[in-house]
Formats: sequence, C-alpha cells, structure tokens
Amino acid sequence: MKFTLDKSYEILERTPSVLRTLLSGLSYDWIVNNEGPDTFSPYDVIGHLIHGEKTDWRDRTIMILEHGTGKTFVPFDRFAQFDASKGKSLATLLDEFEKLRADSLTWLRSLKLSEDDFDKKGNHPALGQVTLRQLLSTWVIHDLTHIAQITRVMAKQYKSEIGPWVEYFRIMNF
Amino acid sequence: MKFTLDKSYEILERTPSVLRTLLSGLSYDWIVNNEGPDTFSPYDVIGHLIHGEKTDWRDRTIMILEHGTGKTFVPFDRFAQFDASKGKSLATLLDEFEKLRADSLTWLRSLKLSEDDFDKKGNHPALGQVTLRQLLSTWVIHDLTHIAQITRVMAKQYKSEIGPWVEYFRIMNF
Repeated sequence: MKFTLDKSYEILERTPSVLRTLLSGLSYDWIVNNEGPDTFSPYDVIGHLIHGEKTDWRDRTIMILEHGTGKTFVPFDRFAQFDASKGKSLATLLDEFEKLRADSLTWLRSLKLSEDDFDKKGNHPALGQVTLRQLLSTWVIHDLTHIAQITRVMAKQYKSEIGPWVEYFRIMNF
Repeated sequence: MKFTLDKSYEILERTPSVLRTLLSGLSYDWIVNNEGPDTFSPYDVIGHLIHGEKTDWRDRTIMILEHGTGKTFVPFDRFAQFDASKGKSLATLLDEFEKLRADSLTWLRSLKLSEDDFDKKGNHPALGQVTLRQLLSTWVIHDLTHIAQITRVMAKQYKSEIGPWVEYFRIMNF
C-alpha cells in the first residue's frame, strides 16, 4: 500500500478517539501495568504520544521543508513522559493529546503539501537521510503500533489467568 | 493481575465501540489487506469475533456449568468467517458484533456467577481440562489481542513506506 496524505489522515485523525474509547474509565490495573522494566504502560504511551506531537512530527516536517538535509533532527526523547505526565490523570492526558493532534492536523493541512514535497529529505540523527513521505508514514505507523502495544500490554495482565490457552496466543510472548 | 468479573466486563463491554471507532469509514485498503497467506485482515477479524460470540464463549460457559468435564467443547472454527462474512459490509459486521456482544453480556450477568463457579471445569478438545475462570479470562485476552492484531496488520500496510525507520518497529516483523 502506497502512502497518500488522505489515507494517513484517516488514521491520524481517529487515534485520539480510539484511545479514549479504549482506555477511558478503566480500572487502575489495566492502565498502569506494563510489560516489565523499561517498558510502557498504557498510561505511559499517552504521554509518549503527547511528547511526539509537541517535539517530533511537526518540528521534523518543518525542518525538512525549511532546511532539507542542512540540519539534523533533534533526537526524540522516548522517556520524556515519565516526568512530563507526573501527577496528571489519564483523562487529562487523553484531552491533551486530542487537542494537540487536532492542532497538528490543522497545521499539516495548512501546508498544502504536494507530491514533490513528499520526496524532500531531512537528516535523522541515527538513521541518516529520510524523506518527508517516510516521516509522515512513520507518524501513522507509530500511532497504530502504539495502539497494538497498549492492547498487548493490557492482554498480558491476564496472562497468568488463562491457563493452557496461553499457547494459542503467540503475542503473549512478544 | 487477578481475574475478576468486573475487570473483565470493563474490556468486553467496550470492544464493539473500540472496533467501530478504529475501523468505521476507513478506506478499503486499510480494511481488507492482511499479513500474508492464511492471515486475517481487519475485516476478517470482525467476522471471527462474531463467530466467537455465536459458537464459543457462551456455549462453552454453559457446557462447563451444566456438564463439567462430562462433555468436550466443540472445536472452534477459526476460518468460519470467510464464508459467513461473504457479501457483508464492514458496517454490517460491526453492527452485528455489537448486538451479539451486548446480548452475551446481558446473558452472562444473568447467570450471577460466584467465585465457586469460576473454579468449575470443562474439557477443551485440544488443551484438556480448563476452568471457567480461564475461559472468561481468555475471552478478554482474545478481544485485546485481536485489537492488537488489527492495528499491527494496518501498520504493516505502510511498512514499505517508512524507509530506514522500519528498524525501530520490532512489531513490523511479528
């Protein structure tokens, strides 16, 4: 499947409401447990997505359009949310993410990007040259894989309760 | 995390609306592509969940409560949806699943299950003895892992578009 802006908007637009439907009002245990040391809980993921809206996708798009490969992206802090989310409820984080994402997409639409723009390049600090098409596709995949992660993390909380059925769930060992 | 009926309802109740929010109105490509031969597309998963509501969770619960290990569960047909869904739109399937799940949970609540009931046993055709607690926990995990599967399958449709970023997404090779 080829990247198009329209197909990307279809996903990027709905992620806040998917997360809200998936997580709002859940018990504490479903939300704060993770997969072990240095892994994310569903709560952590929302903070991580917020940090992405604030510092990653938009800034890197601007850098590609304005500076091409003349500048290098600021490395993304994958653990920033552990401080930034402190003291905030999940409901607050879901609201914050929804607002930031809506702003991001309003801004992205205002750019009126063309096919030529998608081929423009930037410099990733670890991966080297990347195109705007790759960046925007990654934004979409990043949303989807974090929803996959959240539901996998939640599923694992019942891993010890399903007895012999565990062998049917390859994902429990991911 | 220990199984409780309340924590299980939290997930089982919301799955239809999560799937609706995630999939309604998406382009064809997001919905019908899969991970390769003998794998499910998002569309297939909804049919699979419908088949589970019709033939699996409820029937097996009844069998445990009424017959214990005296009878063996009917094997679940993991591919039934390929025929059963034929000609139906995704919207129709989402509606059907929502209705069936609501009925399942109304019925489950009507049983007024006790802690003693959760220890009751049944016979799985491949796994041997299983408890009602394990069956109900598996129902919850089954929902969550299929949401994880759907979002992973969708993410993979852009795998060829993200360039070098693919190395950051372990899930793309699952």
